[in-house]
Amino acid sequence: MQLKPQQLSHVLAVWPVARFASIGAKQRPHQVPIVFAAVDGLIHSPIDGKPKRGSMLQRLRNVARNGSASLLLDRYDADWRSLWWLRVDVDVQVVSGDVEGYDRIVAALRAKYPQYETTQMFAGTPTMLRMKVVGHAAWSAQPVDWEALR
Amino acid sequence: MQLKPQQLSHVLAVWPVARFASIGAKQRPHQVPIVFAAVDGLIHSPIDGKPKRGSMLQRLRNVARNGSASLLLDRYDADWRSLWWLRVDVDVQVVSGDVEGYDRIVAALRAKYPQYETTQMFAGTPTMLRMKVVGHAAWSAQPVDWEALR
Repeated sequence: MQLKPQQLSHVLAVWPVARFASIGAKQRPHQVPIVFAAVDGLIHSPIDGKPKRGSMLQRLRNVARNGSASLLLDRYDADWRSLWWLRVDVDVQVVSGDVEGYDRIVAALRAKYPQYETTQMFAGTPTMLRMKVVGHAAWSAQPVDWEALR
Repeated sequence: MQLKPQQLSHVLAVWPVARFASIGAKQRPHQVPIVFAAVDGLIHSPIDGKPKRGSMLQRLRNVARNGSASLLLDRYDADWRSLWWLRVDVDVQVVSGDVEGYDRIVAALRAKYPQYETTQMFAGTPTMLRMKVVGHAAWSAQPVDWEALR
């Protein structure tokens, strides 16, 4: 199923978490949950102050090698009639330091995630995954009013 | 972080959903939420009667080409102190028809998912992803009692 542009935008605006998949060394997929906000048609995910494993994150190494990635937004519920998912294919760049649109991206992340009042948005030099949507697919067990999701 | 075998087994036993990532054509990751049950040390996910997109599922085409896949189990919550994730690296086989251990696998899935009382477990010939765990990594924002998760 394909969503209309305003449906896709709405789901990306309200859904708080995505599972981010990239391709690791040895051609194995690598997944991690991320938070994100869309600004100017691009999806941004900060490498934030939530405690992390390791110094140079696997997700950064992976996208430096292959920028093709995927975001999965979905609802799981014990009532399987309410299941849906949205998979977004993205091309990723790692941006760092003096990032274009920085103030608006930070404002969008703060508006979406009040948690950043107490969690650092960036650990050290501001670094983000910047993602361009290149395709998507959606599925739902029953018809969903995508623009009413929250 | 590495979990102890009994911690890993417990999380796989109680957590209802995983995001399954495989590698698609053109070296792009592909993700879909799945249900699953572990039996005899292998993780099984049925291609079940929940309505599907397309006739030959992308996940089956992908693992036929590259059996390296990843499962992500995680909790998202507005309280970021309660976040955790468990990523399980798996080697996948598609098994179909007269599957070894079939009765025990079906029993485990029915025990974990009462939804199968009203949803068909298989659409047509029984087909499953059979996954061997080859590695894992876990993370939590605060210490988690993995064996107490439910």
